Amino acid sequence: MNGAQALVATLADAGVEVCFANPGTSEMHLVAALDGEPRIRPVLALFEGVVTGAADGYGRLADKPAVTLLHLGPGFGNGWANLHNARRASTPIVNLVGDHATYHAQYDAPLASDVNGLTRTVSAWVQTSVSASTAAADGARAVQAALSPPGQIATLILPADTAWNEALNPAPPLPRLEPATVSEANIAATVAALRNGKRTAILLRGTSCRQAGLEAAGRIAEATGARLLVDTFVPRLQRGAGRVAAERIPYFAEQIVEFLADLEQLILVGAKPPVAFFAYPGKPSWCAPQGCNILYLAHPHEDGTTALTAVADALGARSRPQCATLQRPGIPQGPLNQFSVGQVIAQFLPENAIVSDEGATNGLGSYMATAAAPPHDWLALTGGSIGQGLPLATGASVACPDRKVVCLSGDGGAMYTVQALWTQAREKLDVTTVLFANRSYAILNIELARVGAGNPGPRALSMLDLHNPEIDFVALAQAMGVEASRANTLESFADQFASAMAARGPRLIEVQI
Amino acid sequence: MNGAQALVATLADAGVEVCFANPGTSEMHLVAALDGEPRIRPVLALFEGVVTGAADGYGRLADKPAVTLLHLGPGFGNGWANLHNARRASTPIVNLVGDHATYHAQYDAPLASDVNGLTRTVSAWVQTSVSASTAAADGARAVQAALSPPGQIATLILPADTAWNEALNPAPPLPRLEPATVSEANIAATVAALRNGKRTAILLRGTSCRQAGLEAAGRIAEATGARLLVDTFVPRLQRGAGRVAAERIPYFAEQIVEFLADLEQLILVGAKPPVAFFAYPGKPSWCAPQGCNILYLAHPHEDGTTALTAVADALGARSRPQCATLQRPGIPQGPLNQFSVGQVIAQFLPENAIVSDEGATNGLGSYMATAAAPPHDWLALTGGSIGQGLPLATGASVACPDRKVVCLSGDGGAMYTVQALWTQAREKLDVTTVLFANRSYAILNIELARVGAGNPGPRALSMLDLHNPEIDFVALAQAMGVEASRANTLESFADQFASAMAARGPRLIEVQI
Repeated sequence: MNGAQALVATLADAGVEVCFANPGTSEMHLVAALDGEPRIRPVLALFEGVVTGAADGYGRLADKPAVTLLHLGPGFGNGWANLHNARRASTPIVNLVGDHATYHAQYDAPLASDVNGLTRTVSAWVQTSVSASTAAADGARAVQAALSPPGQIATLILPADTAWNEALNPAPPLPRLEPATVSEANIAATVAALRNGKRTAILLRGTSCRQAGLEAAGRIAEATGARLLVDTFVPRLQRGAGRVAAERIPYFAEQIVEFLADLEQLILVGAKPPVAFFAYPGKPSWCAPQGCNILYLAHPHEDGTTALTAVADALGARSRPQCATLQRPGIPQGPLNQFSVGQVIAQFLPENAIVSDEGATNGLGSYMATAAAPPHDWLALTGGSIGQGLPLATGASVACPDRKVVCLSGDGGAMYTVQALWTQAREKLDVTTVLFANRSYAILNIELARVGAGNPGPRALSMLDLHNPEIDFVALAQAMGVEASRANTLESFADQFASAMAARGPRLIEVQI
Repeated sequence: MNGAQALVATLADAGVEVCFANPGTSEMHLVAALDGEPRIRPVLALFEGVVTGAADGYGRLADKPAVTLLHLGPGFGNGWANLHNARRASTPIVNLVGDHATYHAQYDAPLASDVNGLTRTVSAWVQTSVSASTAAADGARAVQAALSPPGQIATLILPADTAWNEALNPAPPLPRLEPATVSEANIAATVAALRNGKRTAILLRGTSCRQAGLEAAGRIAEATGARLLVDTFVPRLQRGAGRVAAERIPYFAEQIVEFLADLEQLILVGAKPPVAFFAYPGKPSWCAPQGCNILYLAHPHEDGTTALTAVADALGARSRPQCATLQRPGIPQGPLNQFSVGQVIAQFLPENAIVSDEGATNGLGSYMATAAAPPHDWLALTGGSIGQGLPLATGASVACPDRKVVCLSGDGGAMYTVQALWTQAREKLDVTTVLFANRSYAILNIELARVGAGNPGPRALSMLDLHNPEIDFVALAQAMGVEASRANTLESFADQFASAMAARGPRLIEVQI
């Protein structure tokens, strides 16, 4: 048994079931070891940004880490941006980064780089195996680190000789760390705050955005009149019919300020105080009202759902809060825009679907329209780095093969990691991508004005424009084996989306908007 | 005048003419400033790996830096791998990385990350501007740093408020640092070594791989019988008819050992001692013969060409060495493979062409066949991180609009940064991509056996295989506005390549090999 085999068996023993991979020479022993480990499914992607984005989507749904296989520093570099998004989502991921053999490092061969420095910039936990004898134990620790609440990026660097040298045994799995318990004192303080008569909101993030947390929060809201809020970009929000609805904080700083203006008190459950996504000249970065009292019921690594339930019980809240009632909007008529598209999606979205939302300036319409659609999970772009949507949908579908995944994507973002479509075709994943082709980095046209960058001329505007040439997303998807069609009218979009929802397998609809 | 305007004017004064960009909100003032600076041409790419790879190609040909525009940590992360390749090529590049406003950093907004730590892992020089008043001077220093011999990656991080706050003036350009002069003593020692009767080779890298350096080295070789070598992957090699030919070091460790086996003495000119690309169990990493004496005539930051000329003069070498004579191979007959494809390329390659070679397992045939083709520049994949070829060709064409660029690419590598085709179409660049579609990470099938990873099963082999589904590169290129065709026979390839060489503009030929 070599180090790679001991490590891979350890990962499987620790519950790892999927490996998203784009391997190279330094990972060949890991590839061979995966070949002999039927408990781990290897999924090939054509680019490491797809690998890490898929691992993010998988982890958000599976609540456990996928393993990635990345080729030295450049492989990790290619995956960095979607690891950044995953870090912001608190997704558990174990990265395996092959590196040069320990004794080869001294020669500064072409692929050598500062892998340790690079991986540290986005990982919560980094370890370099120093020998084949320790690789398995390092792997067990990596899984434990990834699952450390609320979930984090763990990166194990494997010099090639630690994979190919002789090892002893796999290492036993380590216990899964549970979220910390919120103290009685903090629960009592929150209960007291909720009774002090101040205008209050509860801001949820993390696992408290799942059904149980939302129900507890809903009970509190009904008993006290507190508002229930979620961040603009929630890693995974359970919503739709039968679920407690929360208000979503808007995107732009001045909108957030207005949205929160009435608050005297804000209770955070796994969340941070709301701030502007970007700074703008003359606009606030801190968006809570001056003097608004901020309480932390639960930090991200603490069990917010149990704490919310305890608070609700202490308040004597009734046991079942009001939930959204299923309401299909009907097939809309009229122009094709993000709101009518959203209504079509709400009309045909199957129960228990998963939505990967990188719709950018065209995503809000679908979010709004699906508030009373059948229950579903909504996955947002958490770190602001575009190119997450398609890979995230890919990984979510691997985690939940029996659930329909709908991916909303802008054209600019889609082109970052469009290679994800190939993996969807290869794995026959049940993902429908709704691609909003507005031929623009549309948000930047808004931002250019908002930052006060003056009256943009044609050269500036050309750097935000995707018209020249127009990308044919139908041909692009078909070239990678994904069935695709184009919708120029609302009627054609409704037909195509309905047919995609009724069928299985990967599909792309280019919406000319 | 704001900080962005002062900076952009400074860059233009320092000779910067091109900005490869994928901007975001934090770079909007830079975009606006570029709008008002006619001396700098903005070139949009759909992904930052294209941005940095294009900057590499531009710098290799222009001998001065392009500027990149990258969006915070994730934008830099996406560009990291091709910056790694550029670092290995000693290409001058100035990265401008927009970051959150200084006062916004405290809020840990979603796009915040360890930009400083990240940029340091691949940059020789990193500076964060602390105010709008210093941004211009920082920019002048960045250009000087990028041009510090032999050329390096300089990264300037610009918090958004340093771009939008009021600045004073542009900063004056700083003097360009010249390569250091090789000492008389070192030249004398090299001359003595070349006269000691030992079996000797001279290994060239950097600017000594240009015509003047090769001629000086050729004179020495003729006068002394020394072998003339270049690395497997040279950033820019001037070769073909009228140029002095050098032997290329082979790729695999055991081949290198055999190739160098007769040497008693190795003289390095801007090069490092030859080592294996990867370590393999039981194979050497250090590839020079035991006891081979290694001399450094010139380090990379030193003027190797002048030193070589001084050595040649001291040896009394005749003034004109032998050069390759133009020889077109004729149009070959027979099966379609990398060697016959190479002959077609050699037959039709126009004078003064540029070849961007990421042909991987199919690149050697073209390299061999073009030894006596019209003079051309050959650009190799320097850092081993695939996904360089198409962006490099893009940037080379921006630097040299009047020269034909031929890009050799494997299918696996092409899919890393295939978005480069869109920029080629948008800018109407004269690039012909020859895409070798073998439906495989073919090198890995070789490496899997070479590393001794056992008898690979179907799951292992599937992770190296690109058949399922087969990517239609013709459709992919056309979807991004690039004229494309497919060659299944040598005859059809010859027809298509000849027509591409006779025309202008972007073109892709998928070679089914």
